Amino acid sequence: MEKLKCTISYDGTHFFGSQIQPNKRTVQGEIERALQKMHDGKHIRIYASGRTDTGVHAKGQVFHFETYLSIPERNWKRALNSLLPDDIYVHEVKRVAADFHAQFDCVAKEYRYFILQNKEKDVFRRHFTYHYPYVLDLSQMKRACELFQGTHDFTSFCAAGSSVKGSKVRTLYEVRVEQKKDEIMILLRGDGFLYNMVRIIVGVLLDVGNGRLKADDIPVLIAAKDREKVSKTAPANGLFLWDVIYES
Amino acid sequence: MEKLKCTISYDGTHFFGSQIQPNKRTVQGEIERALQKMHDGKHIRIYASGRTDTGVHAKGQVFHFETYLSIPERNWKRALNSLLPDDIYVHEVKRVAADFHAQFDCVAKEYRYFILQNKEKDVFRRHFTYHYPYVLDLSQMKRACELFQGTHDFTSFCAAGSSVKGSKVRTLYEVRVEQKKDEIMILLRGDGFLYNMVRIIVGVLLDVGNGRLKADDIPVLIAAKDREKVSKTAPANGLFLWDVIYES
Repeated sequence: MEKLKCTISYDGTHFFGSQIQPNKRTVQGEIERALQKMHDGKHIRIYASGRTDTGVHAKGQVFHFETYLSIPERNWKRALNSLLPDDIYVHEVKRVAADFHAQFDCVAKEYRYFILQNKEKDVFRRHFTYHYPYVLDLSQMKRACELFQGTHDFTSFCAAGSSVKGSKVRTLYEVRVEQKKDEIMILLRGDGFLYNMVRIIVGVLLDVGNGRLKADDIPVLIAAKDREKVSKTAPANGLFLWDVIYES
Repeated sequence: MEKLKCTISYDGTHFFGSQIQPNKRTVQGEIERALQKMHDGKHIRIYASGRTDTGVHAKGQVFHFETYLSIPERNWKRALNSLLPDDIYVHEVKRVAADFHAQFDCVAKEYRYFILQNKEKDVFRRHFTYHYPYVLDLSQMKRACELFQGTHDFTSFCAAGSSVKGSKVRTLYEVRVEQKKDEIMILLRGDGFLYNMVRIIVGVLLDVGNGRLKADDIPVLIAAKDREKVSKTAPANGLFLWDVIYES
């Protein structure tokens, strides 16, 4: 048996999320179906670094699986891409040690959220940006980003439906906002993320930008440990799982 | 009665072209359906500057229609956008003279074609660029562009299925190629375009870029007036009707 690590991108628009569900089109479902074809009908289970929700995209999602096939890495990439639908693309297939685990060995993740700052809708970016035509104060958002950085209990920024039982303490290494032409990009890199945490933080940053909140409210919201106090979740379509980081 | 001129963009991916067809989802069909709702079920016919094929996009398509409703231009825009699906967007609605015609008054059109020059596929741009991972000689393509400019009989660059009966002489005011990061953009502006003319010219320019043709072959191909001699049509997904120009 060999263990393989795959790095993929996908356009999340037409998936009911990444994780397999009966009778729904999911990223995991499509990949396991492709692998099943390559393994003479045998079901091969894949393990991703984590799940992404319906409509969320991935630029560098990672998963692993075990196989009894012996195929060069290059050919794995070609074979999988030829079997997968055109909204999933395999960038890399690499042989890894038998004890590698895509979820448990991940040391950090980077998410990026894209906001379209334009009065007019853009039909070509409607699936990949959140259209927000209102004025945003970028300098206030930058201050708020700094206040999110560091190690905090993120209970206030975790969706109610979360199944996380343990600690809600996470470390955000970097939270940054920048503007390029008519798009604002919010980057978050941390050791782990609670359910909907990125989209809830983006919702708060938007409220700081539009003046409904002040940057100084962030420490108060964090200290409150209460989801009810916090802004609403930003929509899925602007969110990309950008990078999954492992110790090399 | 009032005559209104509308400028719209659409993502052509999920349309069977712009022109109405029974039992197919078309741009015209969607717009006429929205107008019908606004006119108490009465069918309002729209007249576009011209048709676009399945999968072809528009950044600035223009059409006109007549209405007995008396609504401010701003409200027309808002009303139509609220009734249209999210892959069509109305940028402007303007009152025009009773003798205005979106097709017959058009004096020039601009098309842009986008080519993705990257070894890797990009799932996020798959509908809006033609993925062409082979090396292209841009300087040769630039020379070829210049040779397309001017007034020519474009019979060699007109699809066989064309219904154009009259002259196939057209004037291209500008044909230009430029690279931005990993995308090559080909711009064509002219007084009129035959069926599939842009995509056939792009196919020839790609063959000049990859060395299958020389720039100096262009005048020979034009003079041949024979579609059989010319490269194959480039795919629809890279093509945008960018602008439709009227005398002001």
